[in-house]
Amino acid sequence: MPEKLNVGVIGAGRIGRLHAEHLAYRVPGVELVAISDIIVSAAEQVAAQFQIPAVYQDHRRIMDDPAIQAVVICSSTDTHSQMIEEAAAAGKQIFCEKPIDYDLGRIDHALAAVKQAGVKLQIGFNRRFDPNFRRVRDVVAAGQIGRPQVLRITSRDPQPPPIAYVKVSGGIFLDMTIHDFDMARFLMGEEVDEVYAAGGVLVDPAIGEAGDVDTALITLRFKSGAMGSIDNSRKAVYGYDQRVEVFGSDGMVTVSNNLPDSAVVSTAQAVTGSLPLFFFVERYTEAYIAEMKAFVEAVVQDTPPPVTGLDGRKPVVMGYAAGKSYRENRPVKLSEVDA
Amino acid sequence: MPEKLNVGVIGAGRIGRLHAEHLAYRVPGVELVAISDIIVSAAEQVAAQFQIPAVYQDHRRIMDDPAIQAVVICSSTDTHSQMIEEAAAAGKQIFCEKPIDYDLGRIDHALAAVKQAGVKLQIGFNRRFDPNFRRVRDVVAAGQIGRPQVLRITSRDPQPPPIAYVKVSGGIFLDMTIHDFDMARFLMGEEVDEVYAAGGVLVDPAIGEAGDVDTALITLRFKSGAMGSIDNSRKAVYGYDQRVEVFGSDGMVTVSNNLPDSAVVSTAQAVTGSLPLFFFVERYTEAYIAEMKAFVEAVVQDTPPPVTGLDGRKPVVMGYAAGKSYRENRPVKLSEVDA
Amino acid sequence: MPEKLNVGVIGAGRIGRLHAEHLAYRVPGVELVAISDIIVSAAEQVAAQFQIPAVYQDHRRIMDDPAIQAVVICSSTDTHSQMIEEAAAAGKQIFCEKPIDYDLGRIDHALAAVKQAGVKLQIGFNRRFDPNFRRVRDVVAAGQIGRPQVLRITSRDPQPPPIAYVKVSGGIFLDMTIHDFDMARFLMGEEVDEVYAAGGVLVDPAIGEAGDVDTALITLRFKSGAMGSIDNSRKAVYGYDQRVEVFGSDGMVTVSNNLPDSAVVSTAQAVTGSLPLFFFVERYTEAYIAEMKAFVEAVVQDTPPPVTGLDGRKPVVMGYAAGKSYRENRPVKLSEVDA
Amino acid sequence: MPEKLNVGVIGAGRIGRLHAEHLAYRVPGVELVAISDIIVSAAEQVAAQFQIPAVYQDHRRIMDDPAIQAVVICSSTDTHSQMIEEAAAAGKQIFCEKPIDYDLGRIDHALAAVKQAGVKLQIGFNRRFDPNFRRVRDVVAAGQIGRPQVLRITSRDPQPPPIAYVKVSGGIFLDMTIHDFDMARFLMGEEVDEVYAAGGVLVDPAIGEAGDVDTALITLRFKSGAMGSIDNSRKAVYGYDQRVEVFGSDGMVTVSNNLPDSAVVSTAQAVTGSLPLFFFVERYTEAYIAEMKAFVEAVVQDTPPPVTGLDGRKPVVMGYAAGKSYRENRPVKLSEVDA
Repeated sequence: MPEKLNVGVIGAGRIGRLHAEHLAYRVPGVELVAISDIIVSAAEQVAAQFQIPAVYQDHRRIMDDPAIQAVVICSSTDTHSQMIEEAAAAGKQIFCEKPIDYDLGRIDHALAAVKQAGVKLQIGFNRRFDPNFRRVRDVVAAGQIGRPQVLRITSRDPQPPPIAYVKVSGGIFLDMTIHDFDMARFLMGEEVDEVYAAGGVLVDPAIGEAGDVDTALITLRFKSGAMGSIDNSRKAVYGYDQRVEVFGSDGMVTVSNNLPDSAVVSTAQAVTGSLPLFFFVERYTEAYIAEMKAFVEAVVQDTPPPVTGLDGRKPVVMGYAAGKSYRENRPVKLSEVDA
Repeated sequence: MPEKLNVGVIGAGRIGRLHAEHLAYRVPGVELVAISDIIVSAAEQVAAQFQIPAVYQDHRRIMDDPAIQAVVICSSTDTHSQMIEEAAAAGKQIFCEKPIDYDLGRIDHALAAVKQAGVKLQIGFNRRFDPNFRRVRDVVAAGQIGRPQVLRITSRDPQPPPIAYVKVSGGIFLDMTIHDFDMARFLMGEEVDEVYAAGGVLVDPAIGEAGDVDTALITLRFKSGAMGSIDNSRKAVYGYDQRVEVFGSDGMVTVSNNLPDSAVVSTAQAVTGSLPLFFFVERYTEAYIAEMKAFVEAVVQDTPPPVTGLDGRKPVVMGYAAGKSYRENRPVKLSEVDA
Repeated sequence: MPEKLNVGVIGAGRIGRLHAEHLAYRVPGVELVAISDIIVSAAEQVAAQFQIPAVYQDHRRIMDDPAIQAVVICSSTDTHSQMIEEAAAAGKQIFCEKPIDYDLGRIDHALAAVKQAGVKLQIGFNRRFDPNFRRVRDVVAAGQIGRPQVLRITSRDPQPPPIAYVKVSGGIFLDMTIHDFDMARFLMGEEVDEVYAAGGVLVDPAIGEAGDVDTALITLRFKSGAMGSIDNSRKAVYGYDQRVEVFGSDGMVTVSNNLPDSAVVSTAQAVTGSLPLFFFVERYTEAYIAEMKAFVEAVVQDTPPPVTGLDGRKPVVMGYAAGKSYRENRPVKLSEVDA
Repeated sequence: MPEKLNVGVIGAGRIGRLHAEHLAYRVPGVELVAISDIIVSAAEQVAAQFQIPAVYQDHRRIMDDPAIQAVVICSSTDTHSQMIEEAAAAGKQIFCEKPIDYDLGRIDHALAAVKQAGVKLQIGFNRRFDPNFRRVRDVVAAGQIGRPQVLRITSRDPQPPPIAYVKVSGGIFLDMTIHDFDMARFLMGEEVDEVYAAGGVLVDPAIGEAGDVDTALITLRFKSGAMGSIDNSRKAVYGYDQRVEVFGSDGMVTVSNNLPDSAVVSTAQAVTGSLPLFFFVERYTEAYIAEMKAFVEAVVQDTPPPVTGLDGRKPVVMGYAAGKSYRENRPVKLSEVDA
């Protein structure tokens, strides 16, 4: 058996903790050797739970450790590009949570650093590893529905984030729709050329006061002429709503929500099924594990990571185009925001 | 038992024949006494099949018959407004197939004639009488899903019409989407303010050469701020695809396609269900009967018809706005085309 | 166009009225010329509603009318075999509601009369014409699921009949399960050899006091060695429950209940669908029409009727075997009750 | 944090390996400290994979280790009762795979040893921990469907076991149906009084030559008068088929199969969904983890285990009754085989 890959996790928040658990228990061929967080107590707690030997406040201790081959960056978004550059400089293989950054210049700088260092960079678009969406991609890629013509994505959260978060989130298009933009590229296997975004404050006026919208309906125009529609809401009372449909010249493929069980109760009043799984932690557990396995596999087998730096950059461009489209109430070409 | 309502049908094409059958056998309280068609052999054939006593080439014979209380106009679209005016002048109760006309001025003229004559006019938006869509409307109107926020309509035909028809159809937005525009108003219970239509020729280049598109993705902005999305295709290989979803502050209601049977066959290869009913004649049989029953009921009980002249006019306005939006690639307010 | 088939209906109760409506409006090639009922006012009411020219108290007026080519027997069960014999003697083509009789000797006598007269006899097992069950039969007959091994039928009524009816019904196995026995033969395409019936009074003690059971679970052993299971209840609070499944060496086919619409409402509490159609009149409307069309077609085209006298006899034998099995709590071969 | 529970696994076959993985990675509060197998290389392989410190050929090394508080018995069925007695004598907490034994006397001896030692014993009926079946139990126990009247269990394997296994399996009723017998007791919350088992060799003649059947249809009579039906097949070509339905005075609850994804592909030929998960390892992964968590919790919190020794004994009695019923083709009371 080959030696295990030594990994350090940077950031011990919700998503860092989740990756740490998977690296500790669910991903073979890995040794989770260190975790850092500027709030060191958070890192200590995670380390205790998953028996991680080294705990640091300063992430540079991880960067400086020659025994660590790969880092998983789960710190706050505004530090991602810097972390990527430091990791690249230290020769580490890199898994980084989305988005890379909200500034295209800084993204490009970080990607250049990765390229120069010759290390791998995988971006955390976990939904690509969900069995439903992966199956849709496979069906489309295999030509089972012919030439794709219309994509429909419904993506609704069960509840809005705190207003404090909304204020620093970059707005719904960069914070929430970004996942759907990635899905659009992934499922259709081609690039978007133009975006038209309608939006409104229909859920909570406080979101509007924070300068954001909470409901959006986005039209995508792909380079091939195919079209796409994404509808987002910050609040679906029945739970996390994550469905996609691709319609093509020879057919259609759809996927529906995941439920905790298949029970159907029929009474004199109604026939009742279970609500969808509540939110992304429940819905995408297996996807988070699969993406980390794929990262480890890419590193160990020296193959390209399945979600590249470019895959991390494009949805940010799309988010900017959507924001501009919404503000100006007109279709916006991606080239307008990414000259 | 009260005397029966004497009805004459004008036009013995596909839809005229369908209404004649329903008036002959499926709608109580009615006597189908006459049918006309400029191709008199067509009228004769229908008359023989459904035992209609009088057959005419000239529809004015129906208009002039004082024993006939109501007419069902199924002639070609370009004659609708004239027929309505004649029928109104003759004091007939009027059922008219959609659209009233492609010219707003002529629509207004016809509606004014109806108003002045004090007769009833019901427009043939049959989908309002489909059990699925009616149920969606009831759920929304009852407040079961709270305040409506996002409407999604998927409306795809199993096959494109002949190119000869495409050329005179008024274009996809006036010929096909018009039904979905009516659905949008019906389901949401409010008016649309602005339309953005993306479209393309993805099914058949000949449709493009005829000056039309065959695939469309339309964003609606309702007056309340709610949004809607309609996706149309002229060709869904799996059959007639007619689904809607309304999402609101307290929930969601969806309806799916109608199937010929509920059989599911599981083999070593796949789990397979039946294709949707092929097209509108199969899918909307009950809706066509129900709309005619509703018309007869409105006449007999002297109540307002459930689909008014205004209901016939608004979708035409929306069709024009969609066409303009598509050509100019920008959102268009309804007021721009209906000053 | 060939002359129409003149038909007379005997019996103007619920089922007679239903057939009369279909013969009047929904079955082409037929002229409904007469109806009789010993309660003549019932016949008069139906005749008025569906414009039937002749109304009689005495069914022999129909038998004696040489212009009537076919009769539809909807009188009470105890008169069926006599009516069949009279109709056969009069040379009429015969459609008779199930069951032919509760006495095997009288059934055989009636079937002999039919044979001797050389007329056609179709028994009213309407479920064979339901699109779901017909599709199951087609899938099985086409070999799509290989060799059938296990049949499952769930057949539950929404509410028990009145106790007065229960007392004269012949018991659940002859009154209710008889339809499922017919389904079993129809779907599997082979005969049953042995029956084991478990039963109980779980719904209403009054049914037990009337000497019957209201819940039953019946095991069938087919001649090929395949097995079947039928579960019956007189009361499913959620509505008429009519499902079947056939499992075979190469797969499985299942059908589920028919719903009034496909609406699914998702709220914070639940995901809710519609209850099944309430009872047989709603569920089997199309099946009743289709069976009558099939009868007319068999007569007009002089082909064997799709549900024969033997098909009417076998389920009665199975009902007796089930009753004996229940009383003696042991498997009973059909040959034990039909020596 | 309290000290961890030290556990040893006895038997490193398929199920032992599965439990070892869960104890190593998925069950908190546990330290998997030893594994044994008479084929020591099998134990060594598992130990290497999951970093288990101690590996033995002789299970008594585990029994004799005072640091080990609990054992998980996954050895061959014929050793279970002896292992339980040894473990009880050593004061270990015991998790034992089903069945305890095929001999009721040995089961009773083992259970007596457990009782005398005052240790806990949990039997590995994993399906009780499946989210679907657990939900059914909860719905029934909460009275949501009123008084249970009819239970239906469909339980079909994707492929028969090797004939060599069939010969020593104890027969389908003790090897396969035993799980369904447990489900019946669990879901209905009451005991079975009488069993009638029909069976046949419909899948593979070699199974018949080995003295067993491969298809069975079993009628259960519960003490309350409620009835149950279990249908088993050794070969469902479409995959593992595990469905249940409970029908009661106030409604019904059903659960369907688990699928790898929710994708539905519609083409011109068919609407196709995914096959069920292949077999128990895929279908019941979460159930296996949940049962082990429940065992650890029962030990740590000193509460009764959720599946007791009696729960392990009853299905064996039912299996004997079913076998006797099949051979004698008559209903058999459980008291006949468990005097």
